[in-house]
Amino acid sequence: MTLLFCSASDSAEDWRREIARHLPGLEMRVWPETGDVADIEVAVVWKPPAGMLATLPNLKLIVSLGAGVEPILLDPTLPDVPLVRMVADGLTADMAGYVVFQLLYWHRLMDRYDALQAEARWEQLDHRPASEVTVGILGMGELGAASARTLRTLEYRLMGWSRSPKSIEGVESFSGPDGLAAMLPQCDVLVCLLPLTDETRGIMNAGLFAALPKGAVVINAARGGHLVESDLLDALESGHLRGASLDVFATEPLPADHPLWRHPRVRITPHVAGVTHPSLCAGQVATAVTALREGRPIPNLVDRSRGY
Amino acid sequence: MTLLFCSASDSAEDWRREIARHLPGLEMRVWPETGDVADIEVAVVWKPPAGMLATLPNLKLIVSLGAGVEPILLDPTLPDVPLVRMVADGLTADMAGYVVFQLLYWHRLMDRYDALQAEARWEQLDHRPASEVTVGILGMGELGAASARTLRTLEYRLMGWSRSPKSIEGVESFSGPDGLAAMLPQCDVLVCLLPLTDETRGIMNAGLFAALPKGAVVINAARGGHLVESDLLDALESGHLRGASLDVFATEPLPADHPLWRHPRVRITPHVAGVTHPSLCAGQVATAVTALREGRPIPNLVDRSRGY
Ligand SMILES: NC(=O)c1ccc[n+]([C@@H]2O[C@H](COP(=O)([O-])OP(=O)(O)OC[C@H]3O[C@@H](n4cnc5c(N)ncnc54)[C@H](OP(=O)(O)O)[C@@H]3O)[C@@H](O)[C@H]2O)c1
Ligand SMILES: NC(=O)c1ccc[n+]([C@@H]2O[C@H](COP(=O)([O-])OP(=O)(O)OC[C@H]3O[C@@H](n4cnc5c(N)ncnc54)[C@H](OP(=O)(O)O)[C@@H]3O)[C@@H](O)[C@H]2O)c1
Repeated sequence: MTLLFCSASDSAEDWRREIARHLPGLEMRVWPETGDVADIEVAVVWKPPAGMLATLPNLKLIVSLGAGVEPILLDPTLPDVPLVRMVADGLTADMAGYVVFQLLYWHRLMDRYDALQAEARWEQLDHRPASEVTVGILGMGELGAASARTLRTLEYRLMGWSRSPKSIEGVESFSGPDGLAAMLPQCDVLVCLLPLTDETRGIMNAGLFAALPKGAVVINAARGGHLVESDLLDALESGHLRGASLDVFATEPLPADHPLWRHPRVRITPHVAGVTHPSLCAGQVATAVTALREGRPIPNLVDRSRGY
Repeated sequence: MTLLFCSASDSAEDWRREIARHLPGLEMRVWPETGDVADIEVAVVWKPPAGMLATLPNLKLIVSLGAGVEPILLDPTLPDVPLVRMVADGLTADMAGYVVFQLLYWHRLMDRYDALQAEARWEQLDHRPASEVTVGILGMGELGAASARTLRTLEYRLMGWSRSPKSIEGVESFSGPDGLAAMLPQCDVLVCLLPLTDETRGIMNAGLFAALPKGAVVINAARGGHLVESDLLDALESGHLRGASLDVFATEPLPADHPLWRHPRVRITPHVAGVTHPSLCAGQVATAVTALREGRPIPNLVDRSRGY
């Protein structure tokens, strides 16, 4: 069996080493050095060029190096073979860490303490106890649920929005458009961990911000396409929103002249909230390949009709 | 029964409201307006003036507004009545939040991302998965154990040091001087959550820093007396330590001309890591008072021979 690796942002050498550890004997080629395309049965990809996967006549499995698969689904020539998305320990813990860090930054007034430190000024500010701070999470899948698990240990009041209602201990569940409308006015902090689909594109817009209480904070760690950036800038400027933490953007890399970079109440990281560490994620590629070989059900399959 | 409240840094009015809610009918006086000192049976205090408690002839109980009681124990005239320290939900969650925030700041390279944002530069840096980062916690009591509980959900490798060995799931336990010597060389991050006693004063000194691996980070959220500040500055300057997060200092407020304020790899907060929120902590005062009245064992008593 031969595997084709295709990603501009992951280290092929690290992946070669880790895949060899889990699947000794499997041949790994790195795009564009495909060799005979007829050999290739598995493709492991992140943002593959459109049309590339359709050139592999014997492809049986696609594994996404990211948890979100919308860049793959965008390809109209995408072959109709099982598509697996990345669900792995290190990535999930990374994301929960990103969310809790950004939340604590705003809740614990770290913006103001940073400013006070710059002036060598000792001033104790009041913060609310976490049990009086409501955090709403858009998307209660793998990453939303893991973030909630960490936040619960810190006593935050938690609400989660998903397509189907959930029963997760310590999290009030909301679903559907009515559920969203009921949840938003209660959220001091809103975290987006949705997949990007036709239903969720642009969901964080002026209307959603207006439904949040004054002084709310938003955290987007999902996809740039979820956020209408100009609406966010307006809501910050008007004083309605207190701040935003953004890991993902409409255009990545975020252009150097983009106003988000310099906004004093926007914290920016360059799409590093949840990272696919080869040492921790190669096991998931192996699980999918082995299930395929043995004809067993493959975990973490994408449902193309839902778009995630 | 009459209660005397004495603190320069907590709001007497907030406490009056919350104590009335839990203990209706109990009279609360605010130092220095003691009225007839013979009435006072309970003192609720933070850094009371030395000698003050000895002027209360019928005192039966002292409740500390802080989790650490060394400022009270320093008073040589301290009456020999039960001394209770603060252990309450909001304070514990605050502290775990402080610890996880500071840890993530260093682990997730937020110092470098802040600098990159200031230059509008998009650059993805490599961070290790949390499961490859070892966090050592000095002091595995109420606050150390709670911090470990949150950190575990993020997959950090955890070690804890205490006087007596512990068995806490997911935390490798060390105790005594040999335990400390075995633990330190493994710690990428060292968090101090010890009480300040004769045994622990100055524990974070040049010798301890030298035992940590190069590039380690230290977080002190316990007491300023645990840290030899000049040794920390040396260890940062030599490049042996990567950074430090400090909430407590030898002198508080930290003097405006102190070099710690301006060190680029030191993060300073003004003793706000774990806050005694009246709405969440008054219940603990009530529990102690009620236990005293009813002659039942009083929880969270300080053992004066240990010093905590
Ligand atoms: N910034 C980063 O570094 C980074 C890293 C990894 C992932 N991500 C992003 O995070 C996203 C989430 O990942 P995941 O692993 O948690 O995905 P997941 O397990 O598939 O969870 C998706 C959640 O969103 C909900 N959802 C989907 N469409 C919805 C709709 N129209 N209305 C309401 N809820 C809806 C789902 O509801 P049901 O449970 O009812 O299906 C589910 O709870 C990924 O798609 C990716 O875009 C970002
Ligand atoms: N910065 C802030 O805002 C803030 C807020 C609250 C508290 N604090 C500080 O945090 C400290 C800890 O609070 P806590 O509630 O967690 O206290 P705690 O429950 O009494 O726990 C103290 C821990 O330290 C260990 N310990 C004591 N002496 C030791 C020694 N000589 N060697 C090794 N281990 C030793 C104890 O070991 P054993 O378990 O074996 O007894 C215990 O695990 C307080 O004393 C206070 O100074 C700071």
